[in-house]
Amino acid sequence: MKRTELFVKTRKDAPANEVSRNAQLLIKAGYVHKVMAGVYVYTPLGIRVLENIKQIVREEMDAIGGQELIMSALQKRSTWDETGRWDDDTVDVWFKTKLKDDTELGLAWSHEEAIIEMIKEHITSYKDLPQNVYQFQTKFRNELRSKSGIMRGREFVMKDMYSCSVNEEQHEKFYQSSIDAYMRVFKRLGIGEDTFVTLASGGAFTQFSHEFQTVCAAGEDIVFHVPSTDQYYNHEIAPSQASAFDNSGDEMKAREDVEGKGIIGIEELSKFLKIPVELTTKTMLFEDEKGTVIAAAVRGDYNVNEEKLKNASGAEMLKLASEDTVRKVTGAEVGYAGVLGLPEEVKIFLDDSMKGRKNVEMGANKTNYHAINVNFGADIAEPEQFYDIKDAKDGDIHPETGKQYEVIKTAEVGNIFNFGTQESEETDFYFTNEKGKKQYVHLGSYGIGITRVMGVIAEKMSDDKGLSWHANVAPYHVYLAGIGEVEEQAEALVARLTEAGVEVLYDDRNVRPGDKFADADLMGIPYRIVISQRTMKDDSVEVKGRTEQEAENVKIEEAVTYITKKLDL
Amino acid sequence: MKRTELFVKTRKDAPANEVSRNAQLLIKAGYVHKVMAGVYVYTPLGIRVLENIKQIVREEMDAIGGQELIMSALQKRSTWDETGRWDDDTVDVWFKTKLKDDTELGLAWSHEEAIIEMIKEHITSYKDLPQNVYQFQTKFRNELRSKSGIMRGREFVMKDMYSCSVNEEQHEKFYQSSIDAYMRVFKRLGIGEDTFVTLASGGAFTQFSHEFQTVCAAGEDIVFHVPSTDQYYNHEIAPSQASAFDNSGDEMKAREDVEGKGIIGIEELSKFLKIPVELTTKTMLFEDEKGTVIAAAVRGDYNVNEEKLKNASGAEMLKLASEDTVRKVTGAEVGYAGVLGLPEEVKIFLDDSMKGRKNVEMGANKTNYHAINVNFGADIAEPEQFYDIKDAKDGDIHPETGKQYEVIKTAEVGNIFNFGTQESEETDFYFTNEKGKKQYVHLGSYGIGITRVMGVIAEKMSDDKGLSWHANVAPYHVYLAGIGEVEEQAEALVARLTEAGVEVLYDDRNVRPGDKFADADLMGIPYRIVISQRTMKDDSVEVKGRTEQEAENVKIEEAVTYITKKLDL
Repeated sequence: MKRTELFVKTRKDAPANEVSRNAQLLIKAGYVHKVMAGVYVYTPLGIRVLENIKQIVREEMDAIGGQELIMSALQKRSTWDETGRWDDDTVDVWFKTKLKDDTELGLAWSHEEAIIEMIKEHITSYKDLPQNVYQFQTKFRNELRSKSGIMRGREFVMKDMYSCSVNEEQHEKFYQSSIDAYMRVFKRLGIGEDTFVTLASGGAFTQFSHEFQTVCAAGEDIVFHVPSTDQYYNHEIAPSQASAFDNSGDEMKAREDVEGKGIIGIEELSKFLKIPVELTTKTMLFEDEKGTVIAAAVRGDYNVNEEKLKNASGAEMLKLASEDTVRKVTGAEVGYAGVLGLPEEVKIFLDDSMKGRKNVEMGANKTNYHAINVNFGADIAEPEQFYDIKDAKDGDIHPETGKQYEVIKTAEVGNIFNFGTQESEETDFYFTNEKGKKQYVHLGSYGIGITRVMGVIAEKMSDDKGLSWHANVAPYHVYLAGIGEVEEQAEALVARLTEAGVEVLYDDRNVRPGDKFADADLMGIPYRIVISQRTMKDDSVEVKGRTEQEAENVKIEEAVTYITKKLDL
Repeated sequence: MKRTELFVKTRKDAPANEVSRNAQLLIKAGYVHKVMAGVYVYTPLGIRVLENIKQIVREEMDAIGGQELIMSALQKRSTWDETGRWDDDTVDVWFKTKLKDDTELGLAWSHEEAIIEMIKEHITSYKDLPQNVYQFQTKFRNELRSKSGIMRGREFVMKDMYSCSVNEEQHEKFYQSSIDAYMRVFKRLGIGEDTFVTLASGGAFTQFSHEFQTVCAAGEDIVFHVPSTDQYYNHEIAPSQASAFDNSGDEMKAREDVEGKGIIGIEELSKFLKIPVELTTKTMLFEDEKGTVIAAAVRGDYNVNEEKLKNASGAEMLKLASEDTVRKVTGAEVGYAGVLGLPEEVKIFLDDSMKGRKNVEMGANKTNYHAINVNFGADIAEPEQFYDIKDAKDGDIHPETGKQYEVIKTAEVGNIFNFGTQESEETDFYFTNEKGKKQYVHLGSYGIGITRVMGVIAEKMSDDKGLSWHANVAPYHVYLAGIGEVEEQAEALVARLTEAGVEVLYDDRNVRPGDKFADADLMGIPYRIVISQRTMKDDSVEVKGRTEQEAENVKIEEAVTYITKKLDL
């Protein structure tokens, strides 16, 4: 492709309202055009990267037995009513619209329910299993804000796969093979070394899932890594032992209740009482599905993790206690709860971060009052067991190994869900086995955000000069800068490279060499070749890798071999 | 691909609510799944056909210098406000939705305004031209009814291309090359011989366009063909001379006004008055952009064609005259207008179908009254000129050649628009020429309905047994039916065929031969190969083309050559 013919133009500046680094780079380099926050056009350069990523994903999904299809973007309300996920309070990213006769339709933010509805018609017998289908589909999510460029769009491309298995063994096997396939994908995309499989909490219908997290400064996620192991946890579920705080050597003081009306937040409280944050306590009250009130307390510098509390308490469902309930069990308005003298029917769970402290603060269960110098033994009973019911944070210890976590900023590039039979039970999706007996299908779902991955790569593989694509995803392998009257030689080289499978963007513009070099760097084409009258004097060209400092002189007749070897073609 | 592994199942019946032949066939054969009227899933079989069609279109668009990109489905209101096409009265197929902050968004029913908005940023100088970009994109159209299967979906895939040229010459050249490219596409899709380029009326911003119409019984269009020529006209613009009706030999009678209140329609009127329909007259009153009242009259069995009337009258815009205007110029309520004694300021246009008649009926310009026995000379002046201001219909004559039209039922598979500079003037899309002068870009737009074409092929290339794809679009080239214990030989043949580039669907199911043959026909795979113990006795297989009556015995070692030759691989 000749640069003078290419639709794309580079530009000096991204639009002022574009705050994300990935979109700024991609706009300046001519890969995307911003339509509105979270909605982008992919130009002839951008679509080449997108298609390269899709093709790698496609090949790896096909390799594990995936079959491609394509669902619809318009979805019926009835498809989602069954699971309750039509409700805007349950799913807050719906875009909705209407037919002329006022029939409500939704724009696909996910295809889980839709694909199950469709697959049900295709799977009735054990003979029809296993089946694994996937698609590359545009998803629409009505995000309140959209400031992460193509890493979190309102309209974006996702690969989503769904597996239907006859039993747990078949299901587990496919689930594992998907992890391997995903890791092959990320390796081929050039981000394999920086991408980890993390254990994560599940969504609807599942207890846990796995995420694929890529180290990325612009990422929205945090991963907890156990050093020198391959154990990675999503921040929501990382098991955590609190960082040390031990004042057990202090002299025990007598409890006092201090008036402190309307003091909001632990920092303010710590200042007001002149004690370290670590001596404050956060107490949260919940109600479970049976109406039992559960009190959870963590050291003030932590937050209660509801999922962990659910596991610790065995509750199926937790919701914050109502104001009425708070008043009833604490005798105080909301904001002054502690685990002091609560009625016997309240179940109390104390986090391990509560251990080893003396003279601590907690809500006095008295409106406007905070208790200080609260102590185990004296004011509250020391529990038989402490729990891990907190969100992990930087500095925490991995309980099993005792190692302090390495905390890594990451972007989620993939997510796989193991539904077991939970979702098929919910949606009544079954088959008849060899004996004619009804059995629920084992289900899994497997996503890769295609446009998001492109954004993550743009964030990671770039420098102050611009982008820097891996050859497997780059729109072109080579940026050929012709300088001076070298058209004939340049075009001959393009022809030879093209014949060898090398994709070349040939800059034939009548502009300064510096502009060509700057564009080659900004666009992030893996190799730049310069051909000029000077290089032609000794029948050579200059070749420079995008991430290399120095160019190399290569004889022009050896240039094709040199490049194909570098590219591993 | 093994049939036991293929996700797809054939079925005996299509859903009862599916009335279109194409969708019935495609559903029964396992290519699509119906989500709702006008919205379909493309299964692993269906997507293969779709991608084959797309690839042919892609290659031909690339060959004439098209560059692929991908726009967004979500569009801003402001993009369409400029041309007035955000308005639901102007464009009645919008699906609309909203961001959380109530910002209105539209789902792309077209990308004309959106792509111009984007391209404007890329084209500022003559050096940036020409540019031709295209995309395969999902379009959303809120059709009131959707009963044509995938031939007219509410969600469908379209290839739309846009050309930007520096002047008329460059523009015309590209426009012509697109016609050639389109015809190559339709030829490769197997419908070339039945597809015509027709002259058609334009949409917004253009006087005329070309349509690509394919002969199709289920089509929604009618094409007027001048026999033994390559002149084809869309029904909206076919020049027409009325079919003969001549009673000029009758004795002239005196005009009478007959009371006939509330008689609706020409048929009823003809019965009431006991005269042939051809002796009735339709008179329509319009107002042009200057407020001039225009009366148009056609023989009762015709309808007034507004576009033709606009051309005849030179009006830029026509709208039906208001009730007030009708009352003012006719002195009667709406429904009783004729061209009898109208005020001088009314411009009268009579269609050529009015010629050669005697004693005709027309509105009496008197509430509840119809005039009969109206005659030129006696009651109304014979005009200097008759016009062609009617919709053409079956039986009409092509005026230039005097030949009676051949009227063909067709489906539109492509449509190209020559905007000239009309749309760029409207949207202020210009470049600066060599002399630094501002000039408007010449624009064209070029569409092919990808899913629609698939539907048209399904309609046309099918019989009572099922579909019958052209090898260029078929999901597989060969349906290999293994009968009895021949797995080893069958798999060896699959391997050899695959190596030679033949795509094989191998039916390894444990079902009756008849079921396999029926599915091969229903799915419409171009070649069926049967391998059984019987055929293996003389080391052969049976090969049958989908449209052939008889199978042929082919030695198994010659099977690959035989098939690749048939397929022209």
